[in-house]
Amino acid sequence: MSTQADDLLAFAERDLISMRDVSRDEINAFLDMAERFESLTQPVLQGKVLGSLFFEPSTRTRLSFSAAMQRLGGSVVGFADAKVSSTAKGESLHDSIRVVENYCDIILIRHPREGAARLAAESTRLPVINAGDGTNQHPTQTLLDLYTIRKTRGRLDNLKIAFIGDLKYSRTVHSLIETLTHFDNELFLVSPQSLRMPPDFIDELDTRGTVYTEDEDFFSIASDVDVIYTTRIQEERFPDPVEYEKVKNAYRIDRAAIERIGAEVTLLHPLPRLNEISTDLDDYPGSAYFDQARNGLTVRKAVLSLLLGVKF
Amino acid sequence: MSTQADDLLAFAERDLISMRDVSRDEINAFLDMAERFESLTQPVLQGKVLGSLFFEPSTRTRLSFSAAMQRLGGSVVGFADAKVSSTAKGESLHDSIRVVENYCDIILIRHPREGAARLAAESTRLPVINAGDGTNQHPTQTLLDLYTIRKTRGRLDNLKIAFIGDLKYSRTVHSLIETLTHFDNELFLVSPQSLRMPPDFIDELDTRGTVYTEDEDFFSIASDVDVIYTTRIQEERFPDPVEYEKVKNAYRIDRAAIERIGAEVTLLHPLPRLNEISTDLDDYPGSAYFDQARNGLTVRKAVLSLLLGVKF
Amino acid sequence: MSTQADDLLAFAERDLISMRDVSRDEINAFLDMAERFESLTQPVLQGKVLGSLFFEPSTRTRLSFSAAMQRLGGSVVGFADAKVSSTAKGESLHDSIRVVENYCDIILIRHPREGAARLAAESTRLPVINAGDGTNQHPTQTLLDLYTIRKTRGRLDNLKIAFIGDLKYSRTVHSLIETLTHFDNELFLVSPQSLRMPPDFIDELDTRGTVYTEDEDFFSIASDVDVIYTTRIQEERFPDPVEYEKVKNAYRIDRAAIERIGAEVTLLHPLPRLNEISTDLDDYPGSAYFDQARNGLTVRKAVLSLLLGVKF
Repeated sequence: MSTQADDLLAFAERDLISMRDVSRDEINAFLDMAERFESLTQPVLQGKVLGSLFFEPSTRTRLSFSAAMQRLGGSVVGFADAKVSSTAKGESLHDSIRVVENYCDIILIRHPREGAARLAAESTRLPVINAGDGTNQHPTQTLLDLYTIRKTRGRLDNLKIAFIGDLKYSRTVHSLIETLTHFDNELFLVSPQSLRMPPDFIDELDTRGTVYTEDEDFFSIASDVDVIYTTRIQEERFPDPVEYEKVKNAYRIDRAAIERIGAEVTLLHPLPRLNEISTDLDDYPGSAYFDQARNGLTVRKAVLSLLLGVKF
Repeated sequence: MSTQADDLLAFAERDLISMRDVSRDEINAFLDMAERFESLTQPVLQGKVLGSLFFEPSTRTRLSFSAAMQRLGGSVVGFADAKVSSTAKGESLHDSIRVVENYCDIILIRHPREGAARLAAESTRLPVINAGDGTNQHPTQTLLDLYTIRKTRGRLDNLKIAFIGDLKYSRTVHSLIETLTHFDNELFLVSPQSLRMPPDFIDELDTRGTVYTEDEDFFSIASDVDVIYTTRIQEERFPDPVEYEKVKNAYRIDRAAIERIGAEVTLLHPLPRLNEISTDLDDYPGSAYFDQARNGLTVRKAVLSLLLGVKF
Repeated sequence: MSTQADDLLAFAERDLISMRDVSRDEINAFLDMAERFESLTQPVLQGKVLGSLFFEPSTRTRLSFSAAMQRLGGSVVGFADAKVSSTAKGESLHDSIRVVENYCDIILIRHPREGAARLAAESTRLPVINAGDGTNQHPTQTLLDLYTIRKTRGRLDNLKIAFIGDLKYSRTVHSLIETLTHFDNELFLVSPQSLRMPPDFIDELDTRGTVYTEDEDFFSIASDVDVIYTTRIQEERFPDPVEYEKVKNAYRIDRAAIERIGAEVTLLHPLPRLNEISTDLDDYPGSAYFDQARNGLTVRKAVLSLLLGVKF
C-alpha cells in the first residue's frame, strides 16, 4: 500500500521539469504536504543556496522563489536577465550549469528555449526546477493553480472548470488541462475560432476520457460552473487588429457577466492581466487571482524543501 | 501630554509617502529614535522581507535600504530596473503591488511617475515607503538630511541655512525646505535667476513665517551661516550651453570660497556631485556629504523597523 | 622564523588588487589556509556585508563571491551592471566608493578600466578586492588556478606547465605566469605567431630565471607535461577571418590530442570555453576546468574571511 511518505519519496530529491513526470498520487501527496508550509516559519533551508538563472525576465516567478527561499532561511545567487550572463560570451547552457552547480544546492532556470530545463537537469547532479522553458512547461504554475482550486473548492475531482480566452498558445492552460486529465472533471473550452485548443491536446482529452465541450460563446458555460480560468489574449497573435479588437471585448469578464451566469464561481488568472478581467471583480468573493500569487509562495516553499530533501 | 512613544505610534505601521504627512513632533521623536540605530546590531528584522521595486534605477537608495534591511537580519526581493518587471507586459501598478504584497512584509517603491507611491500604498495593506516618485517626494532623503543637520549642529531650530544651485527643479531641496518650515530658522536661497525657487514654495515660506532672502550671489550668505546645502545644476535645464557654463562656475564651491565666508559651516550635498563642490573640500572638517550616506543607512534602519512595528 | 600566521598577517585586513603585491610565502600560507574552507560550514561572516560593484558584467565571478559570502552567513548589496549605477549620472569612482563604503564591510569591484580597483582601494578604509580591471589583474582567478594546480598535482614547484592559445591578450595567463615565477617550474608557451607572449613578460621570465620554450606546435609540449592551461582565442583579435579559422582549429584540444601526448595531465581553462576543449574531454580524469569553479568558491571564501580579519 502506498503511503503519503512513499508518494513524496518519488518526488523528492529529483528534478521538477514537466508536470508530465508527476503522477496523480504524487500531486495529491504534494498538495497535502504543501499546506503545512502556509504557516511554517522555521528556517528549514538555512545554509542552502538557490541558483536562480533567468535567461529571460520574469518578475513574478523570480521574486516568488526568491521570497520562498529566504523566508525559509536560505539564500539566493543568480541573474534576472541573460544580458549579464556568460551566455553573452557564447557559453553553452551545459557549461553554464556545470559552473553554477558549484555555487548552489538547487537550480531554478527560466529559458526562452523549449527543452532548456531538461538539458540543464541532465547537466548536473543538483535538483533542477523549470521556471518556464519557452511555450513548453512551467510546472510550479500548474501546482499553484491546482493548489488554489483545491483550497477554494475543497477537491480536484467532480468539478466543472471553464477555460476562457487563448487556448491555442497559453502554456499555463495546456499544462493545467493536461494535468487535470489525472482527475475526473468536466471542462468547458471557450475561445475564438482562431485560438482553439490545438488538436494534440483535444486528442489527449479524448484518450483520457475527459468530458469537455468547445464553444466560442462565454455563456455556453454551465450555470453551476465551479472554476473559470481566464488568460490574456495577446494582440500580436492576430494579423488583423480589427479581429483582435472584436475578440478582446468578447472575452472580457466583468461582474455583470459573472452574475448572469449565476454561479458561486472561483475566478483564476495566471496574471499579468490586461483587461480580460474587469477590476470591478477584484472584490468579488470568488476572485482568487491574487490569492494565486500567495499560494505560489506556499507551493514554491514546498517544492524547494522537497527537492532539497528537507524532512520535517 | 504627548509622549515620545505616542508620537511614534502615529508614525508606526503606516506608510511613508510624503514629508507633508509627518508633523514636527513626529520628526523629533523619529530622530531621537533613529539615533539608537547607529550602534544597533541585533537582528530585529529577522524573518522580515523587503520588496524593493525600482521602476527606475537608483543605486544609492537601493543599496542603502538593502544594506539596512540585511544588517538588521532581514532579506530583500525585488528588481533594480523596470525592464525586468511585469510592467513591460502592460501590468498596472495596482496589480503589480497586489502580487508582490504576497511575497514580502514591506514595500519600497521608486517610480518615475509622481503619485505612484501613494497609489501603491492604496493598493496594499502592507506599509509602503516612497523611494522617490518623479519630481515629487523622497522622504527618507529629507529625514537623513534633517538627521545630519541635527547631528552636526545639535539642533533643528535657530540655524542659518543656505541652499545653493538649482532651487527650481531639485526635489531634495523642495522637500527639505518645506519640512524646515516646521522649525524656526533663517534661510538663504542662492541660485541663478533661471533656477529660482518656484512661487508656490516662496508663498509657503511667507505663509509659515519663515525668514529668508533670495540672491544670485553666493557671498550674500551670512558670515555666521551654519549649513550650506548645495545641489547639482543639470546642463539639460539650459537651452543655451553658454548660459550653463557661466552659471556652473558661479556656483562651484571650493575651499577658498568657504574660507572667504569664514564660518564653521556644515556642507551638505545629496550626491552624486559633478563639480559643484571641489574635491579640495573633501577633508574640510565641516564637509558632511559623505556622512549623509552613512546617516542614510541609520535613518533607513529606523524607518524600516518603525513601519514594520518592531519594538525594542 | 616566519610562521604561517605571520605570513597571513601581512595578507590580512588589506586589499587584494594585484598578484604582484603577494609574495611566495603569502601564497603558500594562503593556500594552506584556504583548504580549511572546503568543509567549513560555520557562519563566520554573519553580520558582514559585501558591496559587490560590477561596472561590467561577469556572472561567474559575481555569483561565486555572492555564494561564498552567503554560505558563510554574510549578505550582499550591489549591482550587476553599470547601467543601474550612479556612474550613469557622471559620478566619479572615488565618490561612488566613498558612498558605498557606508553600506558594507568589504568592497568587490569589477571595472573595464585598468587601475580602477587600485583607485577604489585608495578611496576607502575598507578592504577592496579586484574582481578584474580591464586587461590588467584578476587576482582571485590566479589564486584559484594555483589552488587547483596544487590540489591536483600536490605541489607548485617542479612542474611542467603548458599554456596554449592566446598568450598575447589573456589576462588570466599573464597573471598566472607572472605568479609562477615565484616557483621553480618549466613552462611551454604554445600559440600562433600573432598571439605570442608579449616581450615584457618574456623579459620577466628571463630575469627571474624561469625555464621556458616558445612554439607554435601543440605537440612540442613535453610528453611528461603535468598541466595544460588553455584559453579562448577570440575571433575579434584577427583582421582576417581565414587566419582565425586556421588558428582556431590548430589549438583545439580533444581526447585524441591528449592521448597522443600520453601524459596524465591536468587540463585547466578559465571558462567560458567555446570549442578550444572538446566536450569529449569533459569526463577525462585529468579535466579540472569545472573543478576550478568549485575551487573558486573555496578560495573566495578564504579571501573574504582573511580580508575581513576573521580568525578561526
